[in-house]
Amino acid sequence: MEKKHLSDIEIAQAAEIRHIDTVAEKLGLSAEKLEHYGKYKAKLPLSLLNEEKIAQGNLVLVSAMTPTPAGEGKTTTSIGLTEGLNKIGKQTTVVLREPSLGPVFGMKGGAAGGGYSQVIPMEDINLHFTGDFSAIEKANNLLSALIDNNIQSKTNNLNIDPRTIVWKRVMDMNDRALRQITIGLGGTANGIPREDGFNITPASEVMAILCMAENFSDLKERLGNIFIGYTFDKEPVFAKDLKAENAMAILLKDAIKPNMVQTLEGNPAIIHGGPFANIAQGTNTVLATKMGLSLSDYVVTEAGFGADLGAEKFLNIKCVSSGLKPKAVVLVATIRALRHHGGAKADEYNTASVARVEEGFKNLAKHIENIQKFNLNPVVAINAFPSDTEDEVKLIQQKCAEMNVDAVVAKGWAQGGEGMTDLAKAVVTAVEAHTDDFKPLYDWKAPIREKIETIAREIYGADVVDFSKKAKLQMNRMEKLCLHEMPICMAKTQKSLSDNELRYGRPENFDVSVREFEYASGAGFVIPILGQMMRMPGLPAKPASEGMAIDDNGVISGLS
Amino acid sequence: MEKKHLSDIEIAQAAEIRHIDTVAEKLGLSAEKLEHYGKYKAKLPLSLLNEEKIAQGNLVLVSAMTPTPAGEGKTTTSIGLTEGLNKIGKQTTVVLREPSLGPVFGMKGGAAGGGYSQVIPMEDINLHFTGDFSAIEKANNLLSALIDNNIQSKTNNLNIDPRTIVWKRVMDMNDRALRQITIGLGGTANGIPREDGFNITPASEVMAILCMAENFSDLKERLGNIFIGYTFDKEPVFAKDLKAENAMAILLKDAIKPNMVQTLEGNPAIIHGGPFANIAQGTNTVLATKMGLSLSDYVVTEAGFGADLGAEKFLNIKCVSSGLKPKAVVLVATIRALRHHGGAKADEYNTASVARVEEGFKNLAKHIENIQKFNLNPVVAINAFPSDTEDEVKLIQQKCAEMNVDAVVAKGWAQGGEGMTDLAKAVVTAVEAHTDDFKPLYDWKAPIREKIETIAREIYGADVVDFSKKAKLQMNRMEKLCLHEMPICMAKTQKSLSDNELRYGRPENFDVSVREFEYASGAGFVIPILGQMMRMPGLPAKPASEGMAIDDNGVISGLS
Repeated sequence: MEKKHLSDIEIAQAAEIRHIDTVAEKLGLSAEKLEHYGKYKAKLPLSLLNEEKIAQGNLVLVSAMTPTPAGEGKTTTSIGLTEGLNKIGKQTTVVLREPSLGPVFGMKGGAAGGGYSQVIPMEDINLHFTGDFSAIEKANNLLSALIDNNIQSKTNNLNIDPRTIVWKRVMDMNDRALRQITIGLGGTANGIPREDGFNITPASEVMAILCMAENFSDLKERLGNIFIGYTFDKEPVFAKDLKAENAMAILLKDAIKPNMVQTLEGNPAIIHGGPFANIAQGTNTVLATKMGLSLSDYVVTEAGFGADLGAEKFLNIKCVSSGLKPKAVVLVATIRALRHHGGAKADEYNTASVARVEEGFKNLAKHIENIQKFNLNPVVAINAFPSDTEDEVKLIQQKCAEMNVDAVVAKGWAQGGEGMTDLAKAVVTAVEAHTDDFKPLYDWKAPIREKIETIAREIYGADVVDFSKKAKLQMNRMEKLCLHEMPICMAKTQKSLSDNELRYGRPENFDVSVREFEYASGAGFVIPILGQMMRMPGLPAKPASEGMAIDDNGVISGLS
Repeated sequence: MEKKHLSDIEIAQAAEIRHIDTVAEKLGLSAEKLEHYGKYKAKLPLSLLNEEKIAQGNLVLVSAMTPTPAGEGKTTTSIGLTEGLNKIGKQTTVVLREPSLGPVFGMKGGAAGGGYSQVIPMEDINLHFTGDFSAIEKANNLLSALIDNNIQSKTNNLNIDPRTIVWKRVMDMNDRALRQITIGLGGTANGIPREDGFNITPASEVMAILCMAENFSDLKERLGNIFIGYTFDKEPVFAKDLKAENAMAILLKDAIKPNMVQTLEGNPAIIHGGPFANIAQGTNTVLATKMGLSLSDYVVTEAGFGADLGAEKFLNIKCVSSGLKPKAVVLVATIRALRHHGGAKADEYNTASVARVEEGFKNLAKHIENIQKFNLNPVVAINAFPSDTEDEVKLIQQKCAEMNVDAVVAKGWAQGGEGMTDLAKAVVTAVEAHTDDFKPLYDWKAPIREKIETIAREIYGADVVDFSKKAKLQMNRMEKLCLHEMPICMAKTQKSLSDNELRYGRPENFDVSVREFEYASGAGFVIPILGQMMRMPGLPAKPASEGMAIDDNGVISGLS
């Protein structure tokens, strides 16, 4: 049954929202276990983690084919799948990232699902939520203040060379004017002038760290290991040299606890952490995933961008670090994106074309092959759009079947859980059929070059990895900093399997180039930079903020 | 009975903390009326405001004599007095400002009272609390991003002259390197380069606005009226020209609601807003004060710095704007500060001297006279210190009696409510004796120059007010901007009744100089600047953050 078409915020505001205690009850959690944030949000104390349940749990990762700029609906599919699984009797929690505030006032809007597959209260989730992003911002910027204060200080001075500082300040705002700035101007009282800049908060390494941390002591250790820059004697300086890690962890004392809200159908949703998917791991916190598994039988979670980035990092970094093992992977595809990879231009995305879908299927096929390399067999979810045709759907299903993969039409956006029971059943089948032989693609202990080559060849389909002179120098330096046994967090365009965003479909006969490296020595990644990475978006000429309103009762409109 | 001496955080952590529902019950509030933030904090919805109770309520303002740099304990006295009033059977709520995060990691430490007169949970109150400061920061910085975005934009452009922008970004951090910066560097994609700077969040006009706002529509109107700068055609530009006020108010949708916590003895405390006391009004939100009055018979509240700043602004700005009328004023004095104003150097503050106290009393006497000019008779609270002597106390009491004023020793820091019943009784006597003829010192509609002269002569004791050439030009401009009917928010040192911080005691035969003006056209103030105003503190050489720790269970130490 198709429901009436309303905007996301209208659907969310019209929904019958349950007290969070009622949602928690579904998981057998009594109200006094929760830390309430109003009636509809709660933080979950870490004492609720249950190692036995975590080990047994059914973890389902939702990833996607290479997306068009609008995205193919991983969040919407994850939420809808959760509704569907609950509908067929599987106790399921969806575990997602928190949206950044910046895009809310810009172009993209929020990120709490869409249509009849949303998490609510969407206004709160899209605005400050429970304050986690602000806490991360403060922890990040406290470290910045301590760095500049140390440079200024005559006693207690670490001899930091201001020209070498790589640690940036952050603000959760689309604000291009802060990308590149000079600070410390105005004379001796105001510090030592130097170049600096602000990134948006999801790009903070503190965000990446919070998402990797297993507990407070792990959090502190990672925070202390943040690399800041060098002394004038070329010695590396870390956050722990500034004795910053305890104060930073204090600022994160509540942010470390996962947040519970609900889906439109009143099922539990845990939303926690939101690191970038290019220069970071692009998935919610380890603690949120483990909390979901501790409290329910199934957990549906997602990782940002296409499977070449999101799933690859989820499986090689997050799973290895935390010991988590997914039992099923859902690859979200849209016929729109398949047409795109088959050669359709943006104005042809809604034009049916079996030929283009067939050509575009090569992109999806590569992602399917990639997931199979981890000894996991994906389920394809065809996120339904009004312009889809039956012939196109059939073709996809037939081609997937040839690869021994189920492809199921997912109607969560239009119908909520009712439109997702078929996908839910396919996922349960995959979970029950799964063999416990998930394996990561590379050994963390392998040389950096080898790990990068493995990802580039196996996942992207590249022939050769070129390393710039700078990148080669940095690889040597990383050995000295003892970063070489860390996993690889590739920073690459999400628009192509290759590092050239214009190459759609399944690129072949191409090389990729590592221009330079960054280190997230606290989070525990080595980040090869394969292209320009945007870390601070701007606002559009007519920002979304102009169309927003709040009435005298605090009811919001114009938020999307 | 003196209790064992422990640090503030040790006392706070050892306290038996009640569920906030239990605290609310004391005010006849049922749990479902609250918006919980964990077990010990709650936001109070504006629907709980009760105009009838507000009009009848017993509002007690706590102010102080001219303070020494350590402060004389207004917050501690306010909390202790609240314990004392509850002890003698008066249902009382203390209403305070929220502390800024910046000083927590610097030198000063937090601001949640001290000793056995504290509000708890002190860690939460001193850290992110319920996120109000972060929300204010975001609203402030969204406006900044919209300004720079508008300058960058080819369509939708207001022709703002970047050289005239007075609106600054804010961050709740002690970070001197951000005081003066250049932004928009790095080429055309990053905006138009210009000078900018960050203030600490309590210095944001958004903070001042939130503290003046009566409701959502008033909030939006004030936000829209924020003055930003000029166009190239020298026309003034306001936030409403950027259509910013709704989006900013949306960011403040929860921050507008007062926060409830508890005192160490389990009495209700409302803590909300925290504007600077120099360039802003230095007192909690109007809504918090009104909420306190709506829910309890007595409200004890405070205003920053000495009575020449805090009480003057409270009475002439906040009370006139909101219609609130205090029924009693407490002037906090310490013998230490009296010795200081009698000529003692910092290392002599703890040395008894009746002669110095007698000389220093002239400062207190002037503040008593000043309060009496509002037709209010103050009660003096002598905030007790171990080095106080009986002779000094007697002298103060005798000299106060000559002015028809009660002076009572206040032992809240050492004893909690038990040490404050005498002061509580004196306050009740003052409230019951009060006549309803409170009057502000000037008419808002008077000319700007006249209003400033009234404050300078009547409150400070100055002879002449000098206006710089710039200030005179600005007074003309303010008439054109229609700001001349706004009240005056003096920006002056708190260390002296004069504008020269070296002149202690009761300065006489002095002039004050208005160097320039600022406008807080949204908050609704004209701000004459009488000296250097610090809006972004720095960290000390050895920041407090270095001594902080958090253990594996999230228990914090080293916070003060």
